[in-house]
Amino acid sequence: MYPVTPSRTPSSPMATHHFEPSHYHTTISPHEPVLRIADGDTVMTSTVDAMGKDARDKPVTPRGNPQTGPFYIEGAEPDETLVVRLDRIFPNRPIGYTASIVAANVVDPAYARKLPERELFEWRIDNQSGTATLLKPETKLGSLTIPLAPMLGCFGVAPSDGQAISTATSAEHGGNMDYRGLVAGVTVYFPVFVPGALLHVGDGHAAQGDGEIVGTGIEISMEVEFTVRVIKGKRIFWPRGENAEYIFTVGNARPLDQAVQHATTEMLRWLNEDYGLDLIDASLLLGQCFEYDRVTSSIRRTR
Amino acid sequence: MYPVTPSRTPSSPMATHHFEPSHYHTTISPHEPVLRIADGDTVMTSTVDAMGKDARDKPVTPRGNPQTGPFYIEGAEPDETLVVRLDRIFPNRPIGYTASIVAANVVDPAYARKLPERELFEWRIDNQSGTATLLKPETKLGSLTIPLAPMLGCFGVAPSDGQAISTATSAEHGGNMDYRGLVAGVTVYFPVFVPGALLHVGDGHAAQGDGEIVGTGIEISMEVEFTVRVIKGKRIFWPRGENAEYIFTVGNARPLDQAVQHATTEMLRWLNEDYGLDLIDASLLLGQCFEYDRVTSSIRRTR
Amino acid sequence: MYPVTPSRTPSSPMATHHFEPSHYHTTISPHEPVLRIADGDTVMTSTVDAMGKDARDKPVTPRGNPQTGPFYIEGAEPDETLVVRLDRIFPNRPIGYTASIVAANVVDPAYARKLPERELFEWRIDNQSGTATLLKPETKLGSLTIPLAPMLGCFGVAPSDGQAISTATSAEHGGNMDYRGLVAGVTVYFPVFVPGALLHVGDGHAAQGDGEIVGTGIEISMEVEFTVRVIKGKRIFWPRGENAEYIFTVGNARPLDQAVQHATTEMLRWLNEDYGLDLIDASLLLGQCFEYDRVTSSIRRTR
Amino acid sequence: MYPVTPSRTPSSPMATHHFEPSHYHTTISPHEPVLRIADGDTVMTSTVDAMGKDARDKPVTPRGNPQTGPFYIEGAEPDETLVVRLDRIFPNRPIGYTASIVAANVVDPAYARKLPERELFEWRIDNQSGTATLLKPETKLGSLTIPLAPMLGCFGVAPSDGQAISTATSAEHGGNMDYRGLVAGVTVYFPVFVPGALLHVGDGHAAQGDGEIVGTGIEISMEVEFTVRVIKGKRIFWPRGENAEYIFTVGNARPLDQAVQHATTEMLRWLNEDYGLDLIDASLLLGQCFEYDRVTSSIRRTR
Repeated sequence: MYPVTPSRTPSSPMATHHFEPSHYHTTISPHEPVLRIADGDTVMTSTVDAMGKDARDKPVTPRGNPQTGPFYIEGAEPDETLVVRLDRIFPNRPIGYTASIVAANVVDPAYARKLPERELFEWRIDNQSGTATLLKPETKLGSLTIPLAPMLGCFGVAPSDGQAISTATSAEHGGNMDYRGLVAGVTVYFPVFVPGALLHVGDGHAAQGDGEIVGTGIEISMEVEFTVRVIKGKRIFWPRGENAEYIFTVGNARPLDQAVQHATTEMLRWLNEDYGLDLIDASLLLGQCFEYDRVTSSIRRTR
Repeated sequence: MYPVTPSRTPSSPMATHHFEPSHYHTTISPHEPVLRIADGDTVMTSTVDAMGKDARDKPVTPRGNPQTGPFYIEGAEPDETLVVRLDRIFPNRPIGYTASIVAANVVDPAYARKLPERELFEWRIDNQSGTATLLKPETKLGSLTIPLAPMLGCFGVAPSDGQAISTATSAEHGGNMDYRGLVAGVTVYFPVFVPGALLHVGDGHAAQGDGEIVGTGIEISMEVEFTVRVIKGKRIFWPRGENAEYIFTVGNARPLDQAVQHATTEMLRWLNEDYGLDLIDASLLLGQCFEYDRVTSSIRRTR
Repeated sequence: MYPVTPSRTPSSPMATHHFEPSHYHTTISPHEPVLRIADGDTVMTSTVDAMGKDARDKPVTPRGNPQTGPFYIEGAEPDETLVVRLDRIFPNRPIGYTASIVAANVVDPAYARKLPERELFEWRIDNQSGTATLLKPETKLGSLTIPLAPMLGCFGVAPSDGQAISTATSAEHGGNMDYRGLVAGVTVYFPVFVPGALLHVGDGHAAQGDGEIVGTGIEISMEVEFTVRVIKGKRIFWPRGENAEYIFTVGNARPLDQAVQHATTEMLRWLNEDYGLDLIDASLLLGQCFEYDRVTSSIRRTR
Repeated sequence: MYPVTPSRTPSSPMATHHFEPSHYHTTISPHEPVLRIADGDTVMTSTVDAMGKDARDKPVTPRGNPQTGPFYIEGAEPDETLVVRLDRIFPNRPIGYTASIVAANVVDPAYARKLPERELFEWRIDNQSGTATLLKPETKLGSLTIPLAPMLGCFGVAPSDGQAISTATSAEHGGNMDYRGLVAGVTVYFPVFVPGALLHVGDGHAAQGDGEIVGTGIEISMEVEFTVRVIKGKRIFWPRGENAEYIFTVGNARPLDQAVQHATTEMLRWLNEDYGLDLIDASLLLGQCFEYDRVTSSIRRTR
């Protein structure tokens, strides 16, 4: 629906890069790029899970949503827009992990006293059947089986002003959005803050409920394939996205009321700039049709 | 899914009451009941719109989500649960109204300065085709037509401790929840605070986006039919509901983070008490499956 | 500093009323007035403590910040301003009570799990020495002795629109503000919503820290003396006050950021209307001189 | 009051370093240190104003609370505590600047529409008389003169995990706290996250109201003198401070309710660890004696 009109038809054939990561980052920042790619190129790569464990379920890097990348996209300049189509995202190992208890900040403060300590639970992931099955320890849920809905919890571009933003949190640049809508088939738009945009990807979830209220999705390593485009001269302020049914904006902030403000404002801008609707047109439309998902619950933790 | 097992099989045949309101309330409170009904009874009645206008589009009572009722349900006692099945809700006039501009509190504070003053827009409502069509003034949206999704914005039971809570706001007793999920076919559960529960109904919307971000749905008078049951000895803390697909809880509070806390806590209680899941079972389930709608944006306005 | 210019010089000598309460209210609302007084009159009365216990430490009414009153002030009309000078507030018994543990909502959610259950502690109150001394149970604090600073936690006028607002909470009408600045010598201004204003007073604290973070001050019954004036034709939106050093405004809301917005906006209005400062003048002044106390932490509790 | 017992008596005489900055940072981060100093040493240096202008009122670095430093303190290791005594802070030029209008986020959302655009106003700073006087443009305030109360708005130590945190915001490491209590004579305690702590200082204000509600204090370049100590083996979680009258903790977060939670939790820890009070002792004390200043309103701005 959003008219993606990259500034140029790629002059050379679009390449597909196979990239095997050898190191990871737990901040999103202007780190040294691992690969330079062109507007229109596709990357096939892999991500470790949030605890830093790879496809063999072995720890290869410290925990904390370690990121693969960054990828330098030629031609992406500050105040322009990077388009990332998530082509494929699928688990590359049969075991995923979730925490066992809701976070203290999503229940009433007095109720928080009832919460037991967090433990890790294992899920069996089956790409064939497209399911995740609760494995152990044993619970009353038995072999609870839910559909796979593989997504990236944390990805984004290097932020402005030389910031290195922890992969525990999120902002205008993306980051730890933990939004279950960010699945294969979705196109995501990021504001560009530094030359080359510097895209980072990581924190795959085999499935996740809204708001990641236990503090994890089903954490797992992933194979990830994505294709990038640049929209020259187009400036946006917050991540945007589109899938077959929706256009959407992502407001990453605490408190939730502020996230609502960011997402709503960005949607008004979008409807104004690309659909020609003024504030009254857009309000009439959104007022009766807008839907809010819970965008993020990312909790900034004290060490 | 929720096992509705009223305390008794109604001993007498269940009655259907046709009730024509003659006055309305803009607080939800232990007002004098307009009708006493039995557990299992059905009521067919009507509601005026948020501005106090009736089926002829004529003002009959002051503005502010005026409520029809309250209805006294025999056998409902404090610390028990009132079950309200919304049997039918449909507009009884062809004209609805919306405000024209998003509320200042759902956009970035600096962006709020761009918002023009609110005006009222008219929509044509057609029960036959099941549509609402933007009528006037003219906008770039032309004859924007959307599906009808008739709902009650404000309804609930008399609150605790002799409170009279404005129909501009919402709390444990329900009230101005403005939740688009409260449509015909849904069963709603309310905590009971006073003998007879004292159910109030009003504030019909022909359709509404999440969060009622322009401060209105398509405001309209309604025909409403509902059936009540009492669950003796069952205590809940926040409104609950179920439809063909979901069970849900409603947390009415500001800020949104607190609404999330109330709704999540109430769902944990529900899963524990009626589904036998402990906190870990429930967390494992919700963590990967929970969905959050934006429950309410009800803005408490300074006069 | 604020130019109190009541509409008229009282035509009759100002009276002092001694009022002995016989019943109390746990909502602030248009209850039947207990006394009608004139502009300029003084009332000497007493209040029970938050638990409903009187000067003999005996329960005489249900708990929950029971209010003495309401007092009908002749000549006070909606959209005008009631001026209440707190002449004297002092404990009328030697025993006060506090809760023993901070509320779960003022500590980090994860930390809340460490909090033990609330108990009541006793303090000895000595008007002669002007001190409160921790009595029992025994703690490492020994006979902790702090200065008396008697204040009213909950008082205000009947709210708009027929609301009956619980004395557990606060809003434009005042209510459970729990602001330690509301001591003898202070003049408080309330917006008037109903004829006669209907002033309620209660919830005395012998002393209290900012934000009443344990959920209580030192709860105690009080002798209270106040004098009322009416400012005809003057409309305010939130409570205001002044003491020997400050003028101040009181924003009662959750979250705290919204309380800040209400209080700041009301101060801007005040500086504009009564001191002739435009928004830039007022901003320059407040920007470098404004002080924020934490106005309220009143927690709305689920039953 | 807080028993500062550094790990060792400095074995060598404590040095005083005169440091003239040649470059500045707009993130707080593990930047290359400009100077290595010992436990017990004193530094005399200068800071530019928030706009990057120096003692001659000339721009020497880009705007955004540019920081002098970082200073590497020998012996400071992660999970230990850095003590910074602010010995002297005074303006080194006669001109300061403030913005002219309150930020949109500190007034009611609907009221925000009345706010004019921000401009810069000039103040004359006089160290001799200890005053700041509003200079121009002209306003109804005339030559408003207020006492100097020089403070540092933004300072702190390198954060954890390789983060580079913008000087527009604040967190556990300090940063843009904009707390008017951080004046000469105060001792500040920071958690240490990286070897050497890496102290940054900047953003001097000749005076500032609570919450920096216009988005600026009186912005000015400063001479700053501070002395550092290390408390070996002592771990804290949020900045702490003490002056002649108070011990205090600083919770840097949005929303304000979360800042309250951080600051209260840190104070409970402090009272427990260093004063031997358990949670009940501490609650009894804080409940009746705690004072909250408004710590910060730092607004994270979209570019």
